[in-house]
Amino acid sequence: MSVQAATLESISSSLKSLSIAATSVVSHAASTSPDSWKEAVSSLATGANFQYTKTLLFKPKTAKTAKAYPVLVVAKNDTETNTTALGKEINQKEMRLAAPELLQDFLGATKDDVSPLSVSKANGPEGSHPLLVVLDAFVASSEEQFAFHAASSEKTIFLTGKEVAKYLESTGAKVETIDFSKLASNPAPMPKANAPSASGVSAPGVTQAPVANNNAARARAADAAKNPDAELIGITVRKDGDFPEWYQQVLKKGDMLDYYDVSGCYILKPWSYNVWQAIQTFFDAEIKKLGVENCYFPMFVSSDVLEREKDHIEGFAPEVAWVTRAGSSDLEKPVAIRPTSETVMYPYYAKWIRSHRDLPLKLNQWNSVVRWEFKHPQPFLRTREFLWQEGHTAHLTLEEADKEVKQILKLYQRVYEDLLAVPVVPGVKSEKEKFAGGFYTTTVEGFVPTTGRGIQGGTSHCLGQNFSKMFNITVDDPKATDETRGTPEGKLFVWQNSWGLSTRTIGVMVMVHGDDKGLVMPPRVSQIQTVIVPCGISAKMTPKEKDTILDACEETARSLREAGIRAKADLRENYSTGFKFNDWELRGVPVRLEIGPKDLEKEQVVAVRRDNGEKASMKTKELVHELPKLLDAIHDSMFKKADDIYRAHRKVVTKWDDFTRTLNTKCHVIIPWCEVEACEDAIKDRSARQGSEGEAQDERAPSMGAKSLCIPFDQAQYPDIAGLECPQCGQKAKRWTMFGRSY
Amino acid sequence: MSVQAATLESISSSLKSLSIAATSVVSHAASTSPDSWKEAVSSLATGANFQYTKTLLFKPKTAKTAKAYPVLVVAKNDTETNTTALGKEINQKEMRLAAPELLQDFLGATKDDVSPLSVSKANGPEGSHPLLVVLDAFVASSEEQFAFHAASSEKTIFLTGKEVAKYLESTGAKVETIDFSKLASNPAPMPKANAPSASGVSAPGVTQAPVANNNAARARAADAAKNPDAELIGITVRKDGDFPEWYQQVLKKGDMLDYYDVSGCYILKPWSYNVWQAIQTFFDAEIKKLGVENCYFPMFVSSDVLEREKDHIEGFAPEVAWVTRAGSSDLEKPVAIRPTSETVMYPYYAKWIRSHRDLPLKLNQWNSVVRWEFKHPQPFLRTREFLWQEGHTAHLTLEEADKEVKQILKLYQRVYEDLLAVPVVPGVKSEKEKFAGGFYTTTVEGFVPTTGRGIQGGTSHCLGQNFSKMFNITVDDPKATDETRGTPEGKLFVWQNSWGLSTRTIGVMVMVHGDDKGLVMPPRVSQIQTVIVPCGISAKMTPKEKDTILDACEETARSLREAGIRAKADLRENYSTGFKFNDWELRGVPVRLEIGPKDLEKEQVVAVRRDNGEKASMKTKELVHELPKLLDAIHDSMFKKADDIYRAHRKVVTKWDDFTRTLNTKCHVIIPWCEVEACEDAIKDRSARQGSEGEAQDERAPSMGAKSLCIPFDQAQYPDIAGLECPQCGQKAKRWTMFGRSY
Repeated sequence: MSVQAATLESISSSLKSLSIAATSVVSHAASTSPDSWKEAVSSLATGANFQYTKTLLFKPKTAKTAKAYPVLVVAKNDTETNTTALGKEINQKEMRLAAPELLQDFLGATKDDVSPLSVSKANGPEGSHPLLVVLDAFVASSEEQFAFHAASSEKTIFLTGKEVAKYLESTGAKVETIDFSKLASNPAPMPKANAPSASGVSAPGVTQAPVANNNAARARAADAAKNPDAELIGITVRKDGDFPEWYQQVLKKGDMLDYYDVSGCYILKPWSYNVWQAIQTFFDAEIKKLGVENCYFPMFVSSDVLEREKDHIEGFAPEVAWVTRAGSSDLEKPVAIRPTSETVMYPYYAKWIRSHRDLPLKLNQWNSVVRWEFKHPQPFLRTREFLWQEGHTAHLTLEEADKEVKQILKLYQRVYEDLLAVPVVPGVKSEKEKFAGGFYTTTVEGFVPTTGRGIQGGTSHCLGQNFSKMFNITVDDPKATDETRGTPEGKLFVWQNSWGLSTRTIGVMVMVHGDDKGLVMPPRVSQIQTVIVPCGISAKMTPKEKDTILDACEETARSLREAGIRAKADLRENYSTGFKFNDWELRGVPVRLEIGPKDLEKEQVVAVRRDNGEKASMKTKELVHELPKLLDAIHDSMFKKADDIYRAHRKVVTKWDDFTRTLNTKCHVIIPWCEVEACEDAIKDRSARQGSEGEAQDERAPSMGAKSLCIPFDQAQYPDIAGLECPQCGQKAKRWTMFGRSY
Repeated sequence: MSVQAATLESISSSLKSLSIAATSVVSHAASTSPDSWKEAVSSLATGANFQYTKTLLFKPKTAKTAKAYPVLVVAKNDTETNTTALGKEINQKEMRLAAPELLQDFLGATKDDVSPLSVSKANGPEGSHPLLVVLDAFVASSEEQFAFHAASSEKTIFLTGKEVAKYLESTGAKVETIDFSKLASNPAPMPKANAPSASGVSAPGVTQAPVANNNAARARAADAAKNPDAELIGITVRKDGDFPEWYQQVLKKGDMLDYYDVSGCYILKPWSYNVWQAIQTFFDAEIKKLGVENCYFPMFVSSDVLEREKDHIEGFAPEVAWVTRAGSSDLEKPVAIRPTSETVMYPYYAKWIRSHRDLPLKLNQWNSVVRWEFKHPQPFLRTREFLWQEGHTAHLTLEEADKEVKQILKLYQRVYEDLLAVPVVPGVKSEKEKFAGGFYTTTVEGFVPTTGRGIQGGTSHCLGQNFSKMFNITVDDPKATDETRGTPEGKLFVWQNSWGLSTRTIGVMVMVHGDDKGLVMPPRVSQIQTVIVPCGISAKMTPKEKDTILDACEETARSLREAGIRAKADLRENYSTGFKFNDWELRGVPVRLEIGPKDLEKEQVVAVRRDNGEKASMKTKELVHELPKLLDAIHDSMFKKADDIYRAHRKVVTKWDDFTRTLNTKCHVIIPWCEVEACEDAIKDRSARQGSEGEAQDERAPSMGAKSLCIPFDQAQYPDIAGLECPQCGQKAKRWTMFGRSY
């Protein structure tokens, strides 16, 4: 696990959310040691009364198969922190000061800027915290001011002891308060009492702490989420034990992305970017068949243009990033970075579309957009910059626009189902959930079984004439009569669509298919479809015997590549066969081929499926024919498995009493719905309240209500709706509608 | 021609550059008429003393084949501007108030915000100005304040009459000062004197203006650049007559791009974007063969990281765009938009590269970068945002890095030569011209014959160990001895490369191949390779006869597409055959196939080459075999033509006396060079001075000196350098080096 470094921005916003007024941050020369820090800060002559602190990361000795569990000690600078005594107190062996790499990996910090405030981001997106923080009791209970590094060795922040304790509690890290003064004088282990401690040891005000037992209880809880199969390089938590942490590890260790030092932005590594390129290749060819052409509009948009369509911009304004400066000059007029391109493009549509012969105009672009969300970011699902395609088309008639909306949505469905093996439900959004400023929105809705939450997979909007009226995109109506020709009545506002699919696809794919061993890649988008691992190589072999095996692996890979299969032979030296198996399982390669001496004799290979672990022998000479079939079979079976689960989690409900109960079993709920907006609000509200009163919910969404996800196109699969009433409000039901908690 | 609207920013910077202090800009309610403007401004009670103005655009009647030549009248609001009298004065017939579209197209303005300040951008990039501005003599000579709209109907700026006259002069538009008071009282045409007027009529201080003659002289000068073949939709200037205007028209009318309302940004329309996609397809496949993988790094970069490598950032800092605000919140720490990604990526390289087994690391990304240049923008060549690919690789040894630098440069050469039919000279940059912070830079250098200027086509840099030392990207040296292993001496800083190719390619392609009829597209990157135009359709034909021809066209297109040729049948109704010919010639489609009744009888088509106009008949049944050959022949002949010209413009020079003289014949100069940086400065300096003292130079680069473009790899083509001296400084020559004026 690696984390983003805390920034002054992130720290200050965290403190603000805890109502801690941290107005006192000072800048000074960079400090490179405790002494130089003191010198730098004291040279400022702030006149404030405070004490210095120290923050130290320790790495206890762990069994090779166990998870590393670092300990962060936060103490007054002159407190003696005896690690032997501390280790005994918290049941850890041989605590050693952590290497700079570990400090970087776990806290995004260096020895010169680490502080309790480094913990803020350390748990990553919705992750459970891998750290144990030991807080000096002297600090924890104090109303006095202490100095801490503030995200930089050149900045110092002043907080009271109680404030820092409160802050640490808020991070989700496990915090133990330890009275080092007693510890130092009592190096022998404390007797282990069996009676549970009456007071929560980690409450900031508590300074006397019988630690060991409580720690053990915590350890038991953590064990429940732990993945017993995890190797050192593997995923250390179970998917259904700690899903957010699992998601983060699987992306990181599966080599899909890395965290980045600008919050909410992530690095797409080749393993994930290739999935995006596979989607691009498919979708780009398909839309070209529909007559869509690619173009590129600038990423910048002037405020005048951005704000032209009021409903639309209301939806985006709070998230728009503004460039106000170039080099050292302020721009006289700041420019926005597009959050989407409707208002960027449509002034030009007005110019380019002069006659009905210019219709349809069908443009698409592959680009990135920026939405500076302040909600918690989530790799692929909610990021401040993301890659997508956005199509923008203009038509003479609503019928043509309607038709295209559906064609595109079908392509989105094919991306999910045919490429990613992810089932989706196509349908139309409710009025409340449709695109801001549009006419109606169609969507493909995915499902994350582990959390029971829905996820919008891609949307194809009919904008109607709303934007064409705003941007004055008109043509002479070819059906105009002699009377109306040339008059306003003889003009026609064009019908427009817009549609977009983003790298969110990749996140959904990972969440749906991944397992406790890591990623499970759908074969059609996996950069490597089959990896060939030499097996049975022993020290007793002659170099020639060994080369025979290695050559066979390389030759197999070559012949498969020639047959159009993305194959790779893993001939790395210095890595064990077991390590390689784990490594490729983590990355989710669909098929592993094993070739050992006996396989060579029998002219066969052993093929192991990543999705279900099944092994089968294949004749070497049949490989180029059999492997494509196997890859298709894997695709089909991955899809079927996910589809079966999704279907089992879509429950028809006709009574309100069953609504939240069903929701709380991690299901979506299909109800005969009235389609009244106020009713949708009520459903959200009531299901949230009932959720929190009723069964335990997803811990991270304690009061999340259900919203309408879509009105499925396939209404025929449900009973006749005639005569049915909306279970929430009792009004006449119009269509069966899928509700659920969602991302 | 369409233009970007003026912005307050652009206006204010223009005024600043003229030393006009325009501090007085007021904001008010939007005005929709002269009266509402007065009401809005006077309600502000500024207390200032000023007069209102009016700005009116007129369109005189023109012959259908002539260029539209609008007239902008700027006058005191209550001056009577009699258009009949004015028309006679300036030799224009039937002056009518221009339609809103024309106002938009020529000035990017509406009737409610048009002002003399709208003219600022109207001449586009380096374009000659299509407007005649008629300035009221009362205004031109006045030191009083006048009110003008300032880029918006909600803003008013106050300038003296002389200031506005000075401003208008600076725009490059033709300005005539007219005394309307005399004109009104003297509606008869002035007698046409043949003697030239002694005073320049357009000088701002001159109020009495004998206009007609001077106007005629201007018209003669403009005629010289005019393209006699221009149809209404065609290019109205000759390529070698007014190259900047030609470039702009050819891009615009050839449907490659449109101007955009954020200065320095342009819209890439499908016709140009497709060229980019063709380049992407080729290059992406080739680098994958070299083991390069694609990824995507965020567009944002923190200032800390951006500024890590000092030499490097010095080169980019003045052009970096900064995001300082999101929604309505200021960011605590502004983030930059990447101008290039070295400093974005390399902190992660330091993290990812743990061992020499992680090498080579070869990543590439297709993205856009932002360099907020304040120099005059030029579509494709110098834009504030541009598309490119940037490759970043890390190697164990310099040898490996060297090898890759050359492999990539070879691919860039192939993009130019094999795809775009543009010849380039590969070589290495001088120390002065190399990439900021790099070790050495290789380049492919293109040439624009019309201006005689060189253009850097793409660069492949070896960064050496400069960045790896800055970002601490190290591995254990596999050759470390037992003594050095684990010590700093046992560490090795990796060797890095970076390489990039941008949409500039498209601009070079257009400049090299285009002609007076418009674009000439190289066949391999043209979105449409052949267009099929039905011919000989007459009103006397029966519908069936007509359909037979149209069907044959469509059928031909279909069979060509099946054979992998990008073909399109132009079956548009309501357009004449001649219009279609012109239209596709403008867009540069390599081959036009004509199918008429006689062709059908003879089972043949007529193929017309865009590049040289050659016609040939082809048997219909042989088309799918012959056309690909023809397209290849066109490619080869376009390349050969451009290559011959380029070769003829690279002149070996060994005496300083010949240096600038050769340069001034629009040639590059190859000299035996000493490779001393100070000498390069001297060459630039001396060739600039000599240029301006000697023959007339390119008007737009009046004092441009020559810089070194590259040291060609192919030194063998030149005489033995041993014993030769640098012609500039007389020091020992090291290598033959190409110098030239450049973009």
